[in-house]
Amino acid sequence: MAAVSAFLYENEGNIIDVDQHVDKEAGTFSMRVEWEVEGFKIPRNEIRSAIQSLISRFSMKIELHYSDQPARVALFVTRDNHCVYDLLSRHESGELNMEIPLIISNRLDLRSIAERFGIPFHHFPITKETKAAQEKKEIELLKAHNVGTVILARYMQILSPLMTEAFPSRIINIHHSFLPAFPGARPYHSAHKRGVKLVGATSHYVTEELDEGPIIAQGVTPVSHRDSVQDFIRKGRALEQSVLSRAVWLHLNRRTLVHGNRTTVFG
Amino acid sequence: MAAVSAFLYENEGNIIDVDQHVDKEAGTFSMRVEWEVEGFKIPRNEIRSAIQSLISRFSMKIELHYSDQPARVALFVTRDNHCVYDLLSRHESGELNMEIPLIISNRLDLRSIAERFGIPFHHFPITKETKAAQEKKEIELLKAHNVGTVILARYMQILSPLMTEAFPSRIINIHHSFLPAFPGARPYHSAHKRGVKLVGATSHYVTEELDEGPIIAQGVTPVSHRDSVQDFIRKGRALEQSVLSRAVWLHLNRRTLVHGNRTTVFG
Amino acid sequence: MAAVSAFLYENEGNIIDVDQHVDKEAGTFSMRVEWEVEGFKIPRNEIRSAIQSLISRFSMKIELHYSDQPARVALFVTRDNHCVYDLLSRHESGELNMEIPLIISNRLDLRSIAERFGIPFHHFPITKETKAAQEKKEIELLKAHNVGTVILARYMQILSPLMTEAFPSRIINIHHSFLPAFPGARPYHSAHKRGVKLVGATSHYVTEELDEGPIIAQGVTPVSHRDSVQDFIRKGRALEQSVLSRAVWLHLNRRTLVHGNRTTVFG
Amino acid sequence: MAAVSAFLYENEGNIIDVDQHVDKEAGTFSMRVEWEVEGFKIPRNEIRSAIQSLISRFSMKIELHYSDQPARVALFVTRDNHCVYDLLSRHESGELNMEIPLIISNRLDLRSIAERFGIPFHHFPITKETKAAQEKKEIELLKAHNVGTVILARYMQILSPLMTEAFPSRIINIHHSFLPAFPGARPYHSAHKRGVKLVGATSHYVTEELDEGPIIAQGVTPVSHRDSVQDFIRKGRALEQSVLSRAVWLHLNRRTLVHGNRTTVFG
Repeated sequence: MAAVSAFLYENEGNIIDVDQHVDKEAGTFSMRVEWEVEGFKIPRNEIRSAIQSLISRFSMKIELHYSDQPARVALFVTRDNHCVYDLLSRHESGELNMEIPLIISNRLDLRSIAERFGIPFHHFPITKETKAAQEKKEIELLKAHNVGTVILARYMQILSPLMTEAFPSRIINIHHSFLPAFPGARPYHSAHKRGVKLVGATSHYVTEELDEGPIIAQGVTPVSHRDSVQDFIRKGRALEQSVLSRAVWLHLNRRTLVHGNRTTVFG
Repeated sequence: MAAVSAFLYENEGNIIDVDQHVDKEAGTFSMRVEWEVEGFKIPRNEIRSAIQSLISRFSMKIELHYSDQPARVALFVTRDNHCVYDLLSRHESGELNMEIPLIISNRLDLRSIAERFGIPFHHFPITKETKAAQEKKEIELLKAHNVGTVILARYMQILSPLMTEAFPSRIINIHHSFLPAFPGARPYHSAHKRGVKLVGATSHYVTEELDEGPIIAQGVTPVSHRDSVQDFIRKGRALEQSVLSRAVWLHLNRRTLVHGNRTTVFG
Repeated sequence: MAAVSAFLYENEGNIIDVDQHVDKEAGTFSMRVEWEVEGFKIPRNEIRSAIQSLISRFSMKIELHYSDQPARVALFVTRDNHCVYDLLSRHESGELNMEIPLIISNRLDLRSIAERFGIPFHHFPITKETKAAQEKKEIELLKAHNVGTVILARYMQILSPLMTEAFPSRIINIHHSFLPAFPGARPYHSAHKRGVKLVGATSHYVTEELDEGPIIAQGVTPVSHRDSVQDFIRKGRALEQSVLSRAVWLHLNRRTLVHGNRTTVFG
Repeated sequence: MAAVSAFLYENEGNIIDVDQHVDKEAGTFSMRVEWEVEGFKIPRNEIRSAIQSLISRFSMKIELHYSDQPARVALFVTRDNHCVYDLLSRHESGELNMEIPLIISNRLDLRSIAERFGIPFHHFPITKETKAAQEKKEIELLKAHNVGTVILARYMQILSPLMTEAFPSRIINIHHSFLPAFPGARPYHSAHKRGVKLVGATSHYVTEELDEGPIIAQGVTPVSHRDSVQDFIRKGRALEQSVLSRAVWLHLNRRTLVHGNRTTVFG
């Protein structure tokens, strides 16, 4: 902390935002600093190497991002429209600092949404047999479009390790339950059967283990004995949108750090 | 209650949902019954007159709606896109039992959204001088399209009594604060200045008194000293969507009753 | 519904509160009516038999309670003081319609609380070997005190079927997680390890299956990467108090019905 | 930041927790550092002067606290018992790092609680005429007991400037509404009349302006048309306890900073 803050101070970095976290159990120290490039005494193209020499003095890991270089994001969808509409609406209003070069789906249901927003739509139907081959093609397409982040906006296919390893801590999913309760398929049905009084949604980074990845954001909404499974689904929709868009915003603004199976979220 | 339930029982009405409320202070009794027309011994076109004779025995007020006759709804918008996208997305997914014959706006910003969804867009620019005349035209247009419900999806104009009297308890607004805190303009700015730890949203029926109408639904979301006014606005968006769509769903499913300045919500 | 409401109407029952629920899946109809005995044309001591004849006409199950006959409740505690203090404080302020003839504990830690409130404290130390014998004695003691409801206010012993069968749907527990997530021991530790962003609490009726009984009330509170397990525990305390006292209030006011593994809560 | 972190680094301060805040609007930078005295190269009794020389180089304001020196706190109560029981219970369980040398009340209702917990109880009945004189005596008593923090645990008297000036940013109140909605007397009645769908509670530092002081914590809980004013009061109780105890914990752990009429809460 002393080294980094001295580095910024000496080079007249105007700090916009700073947050830190001491994890005593893990024995780690994390820091997120956002400062203005304008007025900074080190020229933009030399910052990385200047920081490199800072790193070499300590055993630090550093990520450097420029907020005027938006993330390149692919949306994966299947049939439910609410999360993808919400992300596109927020993108349109300028809230989400990203570019969306393509939308990928295993079905054709939502093709018209992509068309409405003028985003290329790619259809990759997937069966057990074709999954490996199709995912390989998807990864090639994503790489070709320089995509760094994948958002599963209610994408109803389990990704294979091929995909999860290609985008470590860069695939964001929304699961429609309060994880670790009700992992897997049809969580609203399970929640209804169990008679819970709140339904939840969880946005997390996707890892090889289904629904076990590091959690970025969670939310809940009340339900009652009056609510059918269909009501759970309806009430859950607003929640899924809100939890996913919060997680996406945090990710795009580089406010998430992954340590093992947990996240530090500089909210 | 006895009379209504006997009426349904004797005519073999298959009750789907029933809710009641005794308001001891006001000395009123309210009841909402939803039953299947199929199998009901009174033919569909005679139900209203059968109920009429029930009313004449007691001093009851009755509203009769058929769920296969969706409400005709006009959306009023201005510049913010999130609430209108959310309503259109939910409509598309079949969650909201309504028809949207037109979108009205005092500006042109969101014309493209209407076009994307194939809904006629009507532009009524409004100034202090033209408001009365323009609202008069709007009302004519709404009547011509047989519109029964108006949703102000972040419509940034105060309605005159002309409009509110034309649609009593049928205009739904979303105000971006936890009313009665921060009524009027720029509530997020006021909330930020006051240093609150939660921001809210309120959906209510519009009456002559600005932001004073009967509340249908409210919600809040946490904020902190780290959040700027812009962050309040961003965090408030998901909330506004969720509170408005809940209120609209309740209204469209005839689950709201207005008594004076309060609502009974059969949720 | 028609029969019950006619029964009340004909006998001039002044209805204070009424709530109903049609469960289409289960094919059941539930109704809770609260009316004033004063002015009711059937004398108090004949109401039960009058209702009995109503039942015989339909295949109904009826429970009849008088609100001036408070439930007799035993509190089971171990070491944590927050839930028992909260219940005793609410009881003292007249919020909870119950009598507390005794407090039972497997440890001596909280004996002084019982003494402060002038409630007899009974110590039943429990080991694997003595559990059956001790629970038998406890049940005898509870029956001797005419106890109908048992509240486990952070009682840290698993009850055997002996106890759960003696008080079916009448033992209320507070579990410090959002069930079904993190059942069993040390849920805050598990929640911390999983990196959740909300911690929960669940109040439920105790059945033979640990943490699987019908849920009465649930709540959550936000946590972050900054929070240690100790912080989870601290933040969870207010939640446990609030969820348990809500469940107890609902139970004492006869607002809960158990159907299989779910509750209908006429809140 | 650079200076402080270098100071700690050079003297081998083992940082336990650190949090910072850049307020761009106000042009201020705030930092909270918690480090271990053990192992720190500057002896305990010289830390203050060492920091003093750090301050002189910059225009900083610094507060230095030792966590093994608990705050001396007075509780002010009137008639409602829930907040005072909650604080005493948390104190007893070791959650709140404070000493409570006395409880002050304008009434006698809660004297027995003080007795149960062995805390001296002081009765200061207050009328319009006697307020000034009584508050003067209270302040003397508080000073005599070396009290630094006053908690108004549902104290139903408005403090005069005499008192608020004697303890600037050190008197914590719990107001039973979501401020700035429903300031002043009987907020639950006003909330009920307005037909809100959530009731709130706000804990804030007391300033001369009634219910206008810097907010530390807020919470809400859902209500419905079924709830009477009495139900609002009951549902609000758990909320008031939880919001007040959170604010008190934050204050006692020196996690609150006051800037004008807002707080920075290093939660």
